[in-house]
Amino acid sequence: MNHQELLTHYLSSLTHTLIKQNVRIAVISPGSRSTPIALLFEQHPALRTYIDIDERSAAFLALGLAKSMNEPVALLCTSGTAAANYYPAIVEAYFSRVPLLVITSDRPYELQHVSAPQTVDQNQLYGQHVKQFFQLEMSERDLSLVAYNQALVSRAVSIADGCPKGPVHLNVPLREPLLPCGISEQQIANESLFKGIHVLQGTLAPTQQQIQTIISKVNQSKRGVIICGPMNGKPLTLLAELANRAGFPLLADPLSQLRTGSHSMKSIIESYDTFLRNRQNLASFKADLIIRFGAPPVSKAIKLWMEQQTCDNLVIDSGGEWRDPVGKATEMIYCDEQYLCSALISKMNKSVNLDWISMWRSVNELTKTVLQTIRDEQTLSEEKAFLMLIDWLPEHAHLFVGNSMPIREVDSFLLRQKKSVHIYANRGANGIDGVVSTAVGVALAKQRVILAIGDLSFFHDMNGLLAAKQYQANLTIILINNDGGGIFSFLPQASEKKYFESLFGTPHGLDFAYAARLYDASYCRVDDSASFQSALIHSETKNGLNIIEVPTRRFDNVEKHRMLQSQLHLRLKEVLADDD
Amino acid sequence: MNHQELLTHYLSSLTHTLIKQNVRIAVISPGSRSTPIALLFEQHPALRTYIDIDERSAAFLALGLAKSMNEPVALLCTSGTAAANYYPAIVEAYFSRVPLLVITSDRPYELQHVSAPQTVDQNQLYGQHVKQFFQLEMSERDLSLVAYNQALVSRAVSIADGCPKGPVHLNVPLREPLLPCGISEQQIANESLFKGIHVLQGTLAPTQQQIQTIISKVNQSKRGVIICGPMNGKPLTLLAELANRAGFPLLADPLSQLRTGSHSMKSIIESYDTFLRNRQNLASFKADLIIRFGAPPVSKAIKLWMEQQTCDNLVIDSGGEWRDPVGKATEMIYCDEQYLCSALISKMNKSVNLDWISMWRSVNELTKTVLQTIRDEQTLSEEKAFLMLIDWLPEHAHLFVGNSMPIREVDSFLLRQKKSVHIYANRGANGIDGVVSTAVGVALAKQRVILAIGDLSFFHDMNGLLAAKQYQANLTIILINNDGGGIFSFLPQASEKKYFESLFGTPHGLDFAYAARLYDASYCRVDDSASFQSALIHSETKNGLNIIEVPTRRFDNVEKHRMLQSQLHLRLKEVLADDD
Repeated sequence: MNHQELLTHYLSSLTHTLIKQNVRIAVISPGSRSTPIALLFEQHPALRTYIDIDERSAAFLALGLAKSMNEPVALLCTSGTAAANYYPAIVEAYFSRVPLLVITSDRPYELQHVSAPQTVDQNQLYGQHVKQFFQLEMSERDLSLVAYNQALVSRAVSIADGCPKGPVHLNVPLREPLLPCGISEQQIANESLFKGIHVLQGTLAPTQQQIQTIISKVNQSKRGVIICGPMNGKPLTLLAELANRAGFPLLADPLSQLRTGSHSMKSIIESYDTFLRNRQNLASFKADLIIRFGAPPVSKAIKLWMEQQTCDNLVIDSGGEWRDPVGKATEMIYCDEQYLCSALISKMNKSVNLDWISMWRSVNELTKTVLQTIRDEQTLSEEKAFLMLIDWLPEHAHLFVGNSMPIREVDSFLLRQKKSVHIYANRGANGIDGVVSTAVGVALAKQRVILAIGDLSFFHDMNGLLAAKQYQANLTIILINNDGGGIFSFLPQASEKKYFESLFGTPHGLDFAYAARLYDASYCRVDDSASFQSALIHSETKNGLNIIEVPTRRFDNVEKHRMLQSQLHLRLKEVLADDD
Repeated sequence: MNHQELLTHYLSSLTHTLIKQNVRIAVISPGSRSTPIALLFEQHPALRTYIDIDERSAAFLALGLAKSMNEPVALLCTSGTAAANYYPAIVEAYFSRVPLLVITSDRPYELQHVSAPQTVDQNQLYGQHVKQFFQLEMSERDLSLVAYNQALVSRAVSIADGCPKGPVHLNVPLREPLLPCGISEQQIANESLFKGIHVLQGTLAPTQQQIQTIISKVNQSKRGVIICGPMNGKPLTLLAELANRAGFPLLADPLSQLRTGSHSMKSIIESYDTFLRNRQNLASFKADLIIRFGAPPVSKAIKLWMEQQTCDNLVIDSGGEWRDPVGKATEMIYCDEQYLCSALISKMNKSVNLDWISMWRSVNELTKTVLQTIRDEQTLSEEKAFLMLIDWLPEHAHLFVGNSMPIREVDSFLLRQKKSVHIYANRGANGIDGVVSTAVGVALAKQRVILAIGDLSFFHDMNGLLAAKQYQANLTIILINNDGGGIFSFLPQASEKKYFESLFGTPHGLDFAYAARLYDASYCRVDDSASFQSALIHSETKNGLNIIEVPTRRFDNVEKHRMLQSQLHLRLKEVLADDD
């Protein structure tokens, strides 16, 4: 066999093994070195491909696709800085447990470390931020390495998709000529050559004894609290039942997916981020048992509250990591969350402490009443915009939320409801980068997405809009534009008046109407509630890219939150009178 | 001392040491964790700061500043994916030997590996692509580590600035509260506390014996060739004299800076990329000695020619790397290039082989005549645009050239001239990413820059235009828009008609007039030579950001290059008749 035939066989086997392992989508950035893989991907009918010029956006696009489908998506680029542009999305995928199969083509061995063009050191390029690095080599003589490579690719996919999910890096050095030969249907159909290997992954089940230990803690607890942070995959609705049975409040992060849906809402507490900030009342919420699921919640108030608790603090994680930024965990329980919930529910036998759960419920209701006073205000503040957005969300909506302020606003204003709404955000490393592209990825997987995002984050990833344009994604962007970094107004540096605007406020003065024109997006700027409302309603039947800009003022935002806190403080005195 | 006082002392000492080591510029991206360093940087009168929201652009901006000033520039960002966005520019800096001091703030030890927000693994974040990684720790008790840290920062700067120059990563974990205290002038002025350490770096001088060995090779050579690829720092004009004395052609890459300027042009050969492609004539150019300086040249024709040479092949590199992608080096000579040239010139004693140098000159002249026929054409092709651009370049112009096609066009059409013009490109890893930002960096350092760039590369880094807008850079962009990836039309995949446009052509259909509006740029689109000429002349007195778009067609480009080759082929037969 000549080089071209060998190349074709090896790379066809790569393609086929990916498909056998249920990889259905590949995001490709154009380049020379990756040519043969790109051609084989493109022509295989079982693989859907997206082309994205900017590798940074491409990787976040793949992240969005993989995140929303909860299955591995392949990425492909050429050698050099192209691969380095994947880094931010890979870091995010690693920490948010999103399965990605990152395939970087590379120059061959003899062009390494000799100043050859477009040649960087791709070995372990992403350091600690992939679950595994593999290099795929081919034999120059025969097909003797095909089976090994197939096994390698099978492993790569299964590691990416294993618990916890995450990115895996496959580096593929290729020699010229870079064109596959005879890329005919016959060659492609000849899959019988490559049987592939299936990897069956078991479930991490707790032992009966472990369950018994947990049950007895639950049974003894009079003031237990369940916290559910961001979770991937299907919502763990069993938690709602567990909380009901135990009489524990279930503090549900917006990304737990438990604030919305048809499951029982009886024990769901969602306005904790507001009322737990009221530090005078923290004594009322003193717990004797905390059980945590999912990633750490968005809320800083939960963190501050938890720092004061000295009780048993159980962290349940099927991913086997050390999810304890507060340093208060007393037990790490590494097992399947669903399995554990079922077991606890079936074996629990306790009388509910009604006072405890009632107190949480009444404070929660009161807080929601205060929060909802925003609805009656005249001006369209950032807070009111989020409340209106959430009120309006259609049934089965997919809402992607930007980092920094938007996710905090959603944490405040996403009140529990029966509507089935799915919330997404990039909470692995909480970056403001790549948010547009990730949302486009979700839109391509889920038909339609609403993205709520701040102006800096929108700016950071405007390039992501090209894929939205090219693939006609149905994406409505609620662009909260306060001309700079809103979150810094909440931080201590806001007092450094002299340097604040230049270093943190960072006003850019961009008129995003032109960005909308560049990407053929519908665009409107809304200055009052009525026009915002009508823009939202109008967007429901609109296809393609649609940008609704809501201009807000950074310092108003701070004022509004302070005002809500002081209102709440007064009202809480009534409910929690005995603590004063 | 309390935490805030310690923090302030330690970070002031960091700032002061940087300044003592002659770091004059810092590019800062806004973020929370980096707050105290950002504030100390911002208020120090000796440090010029630029703020850039998008860290990917920020790093390339710093690269452009450092590249044009040939001295270390500091970069500062917050923790998390922010730091990962620096990666592409760091990779480029590493391979193009540009000194960067990359300062990433980080979460402290106790927040590592516990799922804390915005916390990734920043230890060795950039792997093999920095010259060194340091972590800067502070004492929680006293100032006992200040001196050690100062030494560390001094070392970091000197390593970045040492030969070969390159990026160094300094990771700085910081605990809250993140505000420096008493950031008064008095504190800042109190520099006497921190004396700093100077690092004096010697020059790598060849021994007399080494010089003698080289001299004797030169003296014996009848058909020697000097090649000068991309060089940093001051142009090595002594090479022109060395070539004259030896009677060797000096094949000068556009980034050697030897095609333009007031030095002797007698031996400079610049149209080699065109005439060395004529493979029938390669026998005429058979060398008996090759001496190479600088990074590997842009030209692929040089590479193909060199592969056929079997003579002594000396690689001179003060950076001590293995610059030999062709695998033809016979000796690596690690010494200062300037020093070696002086020594060779002063000791050389040989009679010039006039036939040899005359042949190179006459072929070169003939090729230039053929290349310049483009000037008389009616339509404004990509080639004509480059020829016109180069003709027009004002005295002391700084021209930044994008990768992929633009740098190849400049390689073809930058004919030697007395005008002093400096040419820049990102040839470390040859990426099309970050080019706009790098050019903005050069513009901020050099007052005015002309950037010639293709549409994909322009798109990739449009975010870089924000810094141009905010800092009123005088930047004229010649945007060669062929709506996609032009270079692929020259590669074998162009024959894969079925998939070519979607995978490689990648037409985006963007109307960049809106991008110009977004960033307050002047903009015009030119369809013929007259309007291009007038746009160029008009740009000379224009300040700010100015975009001249030249629409071209990808396949015309391929045709044009083929046509020039066949014309040249016929004409060369006359000159090199005896070889046929």
